[in-house]
Amino acid sequence: MLLSGGLDSAVTLAIARAAGHDCIAVSFDYGQRHRIELDCARGIAETLSAKEHRVLQIDASSLAGSALTGGGDVPHDRSDDEIAHGIPDTYVPARNLVFLSMALAVAETAGARHLYIGVNAVDYSGYPDCRGTFLKAFEQVANLATKAAVEGAPCSVHAPLLDMTKAQIVQRGLELGVDFGATNSCYDPLDDGAPCGTCDSCHLRAAGFLAVGVDDPRACV
Amino acid sequence: MLLSGGLDSAVTLAIARAAGHDCIAVSFDYGQRHRIELDCARGIAETLSAKEHRVLQIDASSLAGSALTGGGDVPHDRSDDEIAHGIPDTYVPARNLVFLSMALAVAETAGARHLYIGVNAVDYSGYPDCRGTFLKAFEQVANLATKAAVEGAPCSVHAPLLDMTKAQIVQRGLELGVDFGATNSCYDPLDDGAPCGTCDSCHLRAAGFLAVGVDDPRACV
Repeated sequence: MLLSGGLDSAVTLAIARAAGHDCIAVSFDYGQRHRIELDCARGIAETLSAKEHRVLQIDASSLAGSALTGGGDVPHDRSDDEIAHGIPDTYVPARNLVFLSMALAVAETAGARHLYIGVNAVDYSGYPDCRGTFLKAFEQVANLATKAAVEGAPCSVHAPLLDMTKAQIVQRGLELGVDFGATNSCYDPLDDGAPCGTCDSCHLRAAGFLAVGVDDPRACV
Repeated sequence: MLLSGGLDSAVTLAIARAAGHDCIAVSFDYGQRHRIELDCARGIAETLSAKEHRVLQIDASSLAGSALTGGGDVPHDRSDDEIAHGIPDTYVPARNLVFLSMALAVAETAGARHLYIGVNAVDYSGYPDCRGTFLKAFEQVANLATKAAVEGAPCSVHAPLLDMTKAQIVQRGLELGVDFGATNSCYDPLDDGAPCGTCDSCHLRAAGFLAVGVDDPRACV
């Protein structure tokens, strides 16, 4: 399962655990400016009893060209309408395809047949690789790519948050006992690791907690 | 374009160049035991005037579990019949999916719209990720994954060697002036870098040159 260290992937891990899976949590160090999420991922993997947590290095030069990897500034204080339309500068080229492909390699070696990813196509930022059509196409190519699939053990891609609102995700996480204080959603954290409160991701997260009517334990200042 | 440093990818680069493309050659350092191919790739990229050559690091732990990455011994002296059936231990989990995904990220950032890969489904080793069905599915997922595709600039995947015999590939390379002496096909080179002469890849290469009736400048001992 892909574990970024954010709110969504933490809930996804909790869902996979609740479904009875032993989980190999995989995080990626790809030169992201919000590297604090990797520390968060370690803590979440431990708290939610992942069987194993791996941080895979990805050559930063391959995922360059995004505001998240130093190729410009992270946008702040965008309106709901701006967030809802178009693909922002925080898009990282082919990121989820690279992440899922590497996770598939890990899964095949480990004999795992389920891939979990915490993408969401409702309260999200318009990234093309967060859509159900993308995930379905990935499952198809994955099952043509591997020896395991050819030999009768195909893999399934699960995106349990895909059609949920951010509020529903927060609610589900609360039910499953996720410690949201240990997650980082911010694209552009302050020097002390605190969330900026004004990037798209902070914005969506705050709206989710507000809708549920609970305080975010990692509330933005 | 994916450039391993082997015979097939060298011919593929020559074909892409002959088609008039400026090429970014991408090689991968993934802990393969035949790392000599990376030196070969550098030389080939220069000789065939690739616009740029990048060697991307891939976390070796993600592609473990293959004889090519230290997870067992490379098979030697297998018969034609053995090579033609089944998927050998040199299969690397999801390798071409990982490679193509990272190349797609590079391509999108560079504004490139064509991906070239030197896979071949005739004289090959039965790898599932060398088949046309896999490549077609990759093209589909690629064009759902990227911002470029969503905004009207989809990419095409080209595998010009897909249906060629090894002899035809050698012939085409000779026509295009490829220096086969600068390529490495061997999975398990000797300490001095010379090909072993007995792995599946050496076997297929030797048969190709034999069929064309020319000497391999990097002939196995």
